[in-house]
Amino acid sequence: MNITIIGAGMMGSAMAGPANDNGHFVNLVGTPLDREIIDSVKKTGYHPTLRHNMGDKVRAFQIEELDEVLKSTDFIVCGVSSFGAEWFANEILPKLPSGKIVLSITKGLQPDPEKGLVTFPDYWKNSRQDLEFVAVGGPCICFELMDKMHTLVYFCSRNIEAAKEAANVMKTDYYHLVVSDNVEGVECSVAMKNAYALGVSLAVGLSEKAAGITTCDDLVGVSKPGAVDRNPKYNPQAALFGQSCVEMRRVIEMFGGKVEFGGGIPGAGDLYVTVFGGRTRKIGTLLGRGFPFPKAKEILNGVTLESVSIITRMAKFVRDRGREADFPLLAHMDEIINKGAEVKIPWDKFGEV
Amino acid sequence: MNITIIGAGMMGSAMAGPANDNGHFVNLVGTPLDREIIDSVKKTGYHPTLRHNMGDKVRAFQIEELDEVLKSTDFIVCGVSSFGAEWFANEILPKLPSGKIVLSITKGLQPDPEKGLVTFPDYWKNSRQDLEFVAVGGPCICFELMDKMHTLVYFCSRNIEAAKEAANVMKTDYYHLVVSDNVEGVECSVAMKNAYALGVSLAVGLSEKAAGITTCDDLVGVSKPGAVDRNPKYNPQAALFGQSCVEMRRVIEMFGGKVEFGGGIPGAGDLYVTVFGGRTRKIGTLLGRGFPFPKAKEILNGVTLESVSIITRMAKFVRDRGREADFPLLAHMDEIINKGAEVKIPWDKFGEV
Repeated sequence: MNITIIGAGMMGSAMAGPANDNGHFVNLVGTPLDREIIDSVKKTGYHPTLRHNMGDKVRAFQIEELDEVLKSTDFIVCGVSSFGAEWFANEILPKLPSGKIVLSITKGLQPDPEKGLVTFPDYWKNSRQDLEFVAVGGPCICFELMDKMHTLVYFCSRNIEAAKEAANVMKTDYYHLVVSDNVEGVECSVAMKNAYALGVSLAVGLSEKAAGITTCDDLVGVSKPGAVDRNPKYNPQAALFGQSCVEMRRVIEMFGGKVEFGGGIPGAGDLYVTVFGGRTRKIGTLLGRGFPFPKAKEILNGVTLESVSIITRMAKFVRDRGREADFPLLAHMDEIINKGAEVKIPWDKFGEV
Repeated sequence: MNITIIGAGMMGSAMAGPANDNGHFVNLVGTPLDREIIDSVKKTGYHPTLRHNMGDKVRAFQIEELDEVLKSTDFIVCGVSSFGAEWFANEILPKLPSGKIVLSITKGLQPDPEKGLVTFPDYWKNSRQDLEFVAVGGPCICFELMDKMHTLVYFCSRNIEAAKEAANVMKTDYYHLVVSDNVEGVECSVAMKNAYALGVSLAVGLSEKAAGITTCDDLVGVSKPGAVDRNPKYNPQAALFGQSCVEMRRVIEMFGGKVEFGGGIPGAGDLYVTVFGGRTRKIGTLLGRGFPFPKAKEILNGVTLESVSIITRMAKFVRDRGREADFPLLAHMDEIINKGAEVKIPWDKFGEV
């Protein structure tokens, strides 16, 4: 099979790992932002941000080569981040050959004039009814997927047969896939775990601050997974982790999805990996240490802040629907990010009865 | 108020922290196994296993002094582990003054000839209808509670007024309490997170083994919280974490409790802290590194293995009810512990649809 990945960021590119291992030919097509990555893969096969050699059946292409590549494409992977979702909708979707499956790793929810927020599969389906969209959700650090670590994620689609077909294309003896037609349950979890990973890591920074650690040098430029925690105190982290699961379930409930997923593999499981392996931890840690948000953002210049975007969007969404009281942690993160509030965890508003 | 804690292990004794800070007088009464601890607290105020000075309003007593102490007791804390539950039922319960609240930190489920397994509050209530039992569940490392770290736990009782009263006695500005009358939801979470913390840490050991780490020296005698992980790979850990939440919810469902708690603060939150701060991690890590269970148990001589006990009990419980297929991780842990099986995670049996 010929698989074309559009977007050569780390997670999109890592999908080439299992695809290549399954014997597929993989075309990795960069966005206009990925020129240097594609140049590198073309020249040497090495992906500079994923820090990995791509497989023997992977070929790289610049965006200008997309039309040619699509002529012999059986299966498409959308590898853009949420910041590229509109670009994908406007520039790429119209070009895709009809009847194909588009497997998406994009994490987040898209503003919608009518519903407030919609999942990316639904957003894209609006303009291309003739494609089947399948979304990936669950705990997966891209580096570890490339290293063939055991990884368990969900493939979800309103068309369960499309999800099954995509799973058959991608599953390996280390990439374990569960299929589901509950798109809201998976996609709300996918989006919100980025938000709440910031929430949990506030406790990391707070306890470091209590131990006198108020600088940022140790968090700059460290791009490997693994968690800096210089004064580990797990009770506060765990309280925030549990509350995050409670609020993720409430988000799913508001979208009419399967709430269990928020306290399962796509929610709790993905939150776990994002707290420990993701970039979002850095921003939460800096905020916990006492840096105001604009300063923390400046320190982490260049780090993708999907967490900040989804916190802002979802806080507005629940506020507009009069449900803010059910989301005390989300509301506080919104205050910190958008209203200059100091970190002061509303512990006594937490819990569910 | 005069509060009597019976059982001077680490978690029971740590309840003296918030009690003392709330201005209560605390009597810490050791079991026959706690003689040296009580001697130390009597002499110097220092608790040798909790590694902390007890508060200024805490006095220590040997078990022979219990009758005298109980004459002026308003509120009782049961501080025994699950291995002391029958001792508490047979030796202590008959002595307790009528009409009092007994707040229990005991984690596990008690075998019952009729129901298979019952919660400790129900087990104890059988013989003393005139007492109100309240159980504590949620993420709490005893050391951190003594250090006044923010901690969020549930107080649960079939009598919600008793839970509220107990919460009023114990809550402080760092010990945050949620009350619930859903005893099964909290107590099944409390019991099972010990089991599943072993499950998650299998991945820690497996990835260390893959990196050639197959010795045990670094895990012996280390009693401080904080997690040894010499080859951190979070995808497998997170998959096991998510699956653990799924199975915890299924246990709660079988007991007729509030399943949400399994994917909330008492379940997912407590599992998080137990994976990172608890002693159970050691046994799971050793098993993952390839030590057979009897050898791992020998290496950890002296470490309380409540996890092993509850895995064995619950695996039998679900097997007896024909539900083993819904608990692939639990069943595998049971095989490892009780049937000499090698660690081989059944990844493709995981997930919920």
